[in-house]
Amino acid sequence: MPAMGLTGQVAHYASSGLADPGSDVMAAVRGGFADTVACMLAGRREPAVQAVRAYVAAQQGRGGDARILLGPEYARSGDAALVNGTAAHALDFDDVGLCGHPSAVLVSALLAEGERLHRSGMDVMRAYVVGYEVWAELIGRDADQHHVKGWHPTAVFGVLGVAAAVVNLRRLDPALAAHALGIAASLAAGVVANFGSMVKPFHAGRAAAAGIMAADMAEAGLQASADVLEHPAGLLAALSPRGRVDTRRAAAFGTDLRLARLGLTVKKYPMCFAAHRIVDAALDLCDKHDLRPADVARARVTIGTAQAAMLRNHAPQTALQAKFSIEFAVAAALAAHRLGLEQMDDAFVQSAEVQSLMRRVEIATVDSVNPDEPSLAASDRLVVELHDGARLDSGEVYAARGTPGSPLAPGELRRKFLDCAAATAGRSDDPDGLYERLMQLDAMADLAELMPS
Amino acid sequence: MPAMGLTGQVAHYASSGLADPGSDVMAAVRGGFADTVACMLAGRREPAVQAVRAYVAAQQGRGGDARILLGPEYARSGDAALVNGTAAHALDFDDVGLCGHPSAVLVSALLAEGERLHRSGMDVMRAYVVGYEVWAELIGRDADQHHVKGWHPTAVFGVLGVAAAVVNLRRLDPALAAHALGIAASLAAGVVANFGSMVKPFHAGRAAAAGIMAADMAEAGLQASADVLEHPAGLLAALSPRGRVDTRRAAAFGTDLRLARLGLTVKKYPMCFAAHRIVDAALDLCDKHDLRPADVARARVTIGTAQAAMLRNHAPQTALQAKFSIEFAVAAALAAHRLGLEQMDDAFVQSAEVQSLMRRVEIATVDSVNPDEPSLAASDRLVVELHDGARLDSGEVYAARGTPGSPLAPGELRRKFLDCAAATAGRSDDPDGLYERLMQLDAMADLAELMPS
Repeated sequence: MPAMGLTGQVAHYASSGLADPGSDVMAAVRGGFADTVACMLAGRREPAVQAVRAYVAAQQGRGGDARILLGPEYARSGDAALVNGTAAHALDFDDVGLCGHPSAVLVSALLAEGERLHRSGMDVMRAYVVGYEVWAELIGRDADQHHVKGWHPTAVFGVLGVAAAVVNLRRLDPALAAHALGIAASLAAGVVANFGSMVKPFHAGRAAAAGIMAADMAEAGLQASADVLEHPAGLLAALSPRGRVDTRRAAAFGTDLRLARLGLTVKKYPMCFAAHRIVDAALDLCDKHDLRPADVARARVTIGTAQAAMLRNHAPQTALQAKFSIEFAVAAALAAHRLGLEQMDDAFVQSAEVQSLMRRVEIATVDSVNPDEPSLAASDRLVVELHDGARLDSGEVYAARGTPGSPLAPGELRRKFLDCAAATAGRSDDPDGLYERLMQLDAMADLAELMPS
Repeated sequence: MPAMGLTGQVAHYASSGLADPGSDVMAAVRGGFADTVACMLAGRREPAVQAVRAYVAAQQGRGGDARILLGPEYARSGDAALVNGTAAHALDFDDVGLCGHPSAVLVSALLAEGERLHRSGMDVMRAYVVGYEVWAELIGRDADQHHVKGWHPTAVFGVLGVAAAVVNLRRLDPALAAHALGIAASLAAGVVANFGSMVKPFHAGRAAAAGIMAADMAEAGLQASADVLEHPAGLLAALSPRGRVDTRRAAAFGTDLRLARLGLTVKKYPMCFAAHRIVDAALDLCDKHDLRPADVARARVTIGTAQAAMLRNHAPQTALQAKFSIEFAVAAALAAHRLGLEQMDDAFVQSAEVQSLMRRVEIATVDSVNPDEPSLAASDRLVVELHDGARLDSGEVYAARGTPGSPLAPGELRRKFLDCAAATAGRSDDPDGLYERLMQLDAMADLAELMPS
């Protein structure tokens, strides 16, 4: 037996097929075919089938009614949301919250649906809040981390969040809303094992598309069980790592929004969030002391043990590897005095200066825990020693910039936006205009105005 | 607080929206929007995004290339599979195996893909076997029942089975096959709580469509992690009820097919499988003694405790309720001397004769367990006592007709097929011809020949 993992074996088998399975097996298969066709014929006028056909017909008939990636091309709203969500999460630069990436999912779906339905900016923003709150309500019921069991919260709770948001935007009645959520529960999928692959960003797009599909199917007449979330064999129990999930307490929806309490972290740097506090500290020292790379004798970071495990690439050679390297985080900040998309470049990572600086970074770990984000230490610290004997100490750094307690300044948010747009700019782009319109989203009468036609 | 369950509360909230969330919240939302759009712009040329766009473009460009329900209408193959699978499972009359309904899922996908690709009948049948074996390989690794945790095996393992079958039919290479299976793992969804609703049959259709989507996405360039099934945070661990899943043993694919060993149960009666042995017994007694309903004083059934729990409707008034009633099973058999789609009729269920017979049925339960199917007793028994004092005893009934050890005779399979087709027949149908073609599937050069154009 070659040293091939299960997936490889399955893949190989699936690809190469099998020896002649024999006539008995083929007869069973033929029977299965005939029997299934029989059932298909018998079932073809059932209500569930009418509903699915109506959904499919509506999809095909709808043509393109939502832009892909705010550009000139249109697709069906579910397909547009699929692309939008995948793009939003592709660089791991999107905002962080609810153990995942709420905006990548919710905004992607709502851009498409808001445009299609010609809803106002305020309507779309309210729908976002509904989606966020539903996600928060559901994920907050479990005592354990879904990641540990293998479920990516963005992928699974995102579907429910989008279904709720779309239901809200479409102004569906509670009966239809319940069906949409019940269908969404049967579309919640996505495993952590796909982290580090293209499927991770796809999770965000797929969740956006699946939430729209759930609402479409409900509107087409597909009816779900009424207790799909709280049932002993329902979604929350199915996803629960250790069964310590509270399915009985009443939902706490109201004016005391979790979004106000938990907020969103806007990432300032396009790399693993576990490195962000150290990057803040390094950039502060650069600003304060006008540091030159050549002056640095060594840099010592103190971070949490879980952070150190995530930041596992100690001598990265590519930008993708560098996203998960604390050595790169420090070296890049000291070398460039900034850390943006421009630094996420293989040539920069491989440059002699960055590689040399990375070798001068040492890591110490502590076991303290940040109550707001258990994967981080209570605080991080950076000490830079210079060749002239000077010792520059960041002190304890508690909140990364971009977290709700330390939000980005308006100018910083704008700069991130323009940097992002510039990274892949097309000739006809007007990122300044788009940003201004987004900043006035509350006042927009029709989301289709976001991009001029 | 009104007596509303969690789903209802979420649904109500989602439907009705919320009070003014306040300007801080709206600012966070606006920031989320802007930040997500920024990330979307930055990510728009990433490989994952190119892959998803290619998938969407191919879907839209492909038009209708597969028939819906073997009729004159065409749809994209994934959409056709969605409808086909939902229809195949809509009456709970489709075949049983692997803790679910393999053919409803696999055949639905392969009808669509086989037609689209003009593959031979033999190619399609081999692909079915591949799909079945992959499903069996994966589900057989867990010591516990996935139903108990809330996962519907048809919905979750079905996606992997279809992905494998489609990969096989498309003759994709192992690398693409691994990506397709890895993507399929992140599309595996469907909860038991939706049993008894339209979403249950939708599970079968959705699994068929999702398996096709996984293959489409892999072909479009989306790449998954290589160890998605066996990873500690991979699909098998995520689905596992108690973590007692063997992810390490080598896959056992070969000429010793599980399909040959485990087989498929073709349902003879359109009702819960837990009642099938008693229906067999009742029809045998009818045939042997030419029983008249008026002669019957009482009928005593002896079934397993789990069976009795599933057959929970003791005085059904509708055909849907009657599907889960052992009283109806006995009464219908004694009244009609058959139990087909014709008897699954509200008027028949409500008829005085059936209602009267149902009241004469008594249930006794035993705790023995059938090793092949743990939800059944080792055997069932039916004793009918007549007004003239005669006592007709079925003896112990071990294998229901339609199980692999007691397969339907060719004539019985044909009769079920024609009954199913007749139940919803259209004017242009030719069910005899279709059945003959299905029985010669091995020799068909192009699956598109299954239905003449």
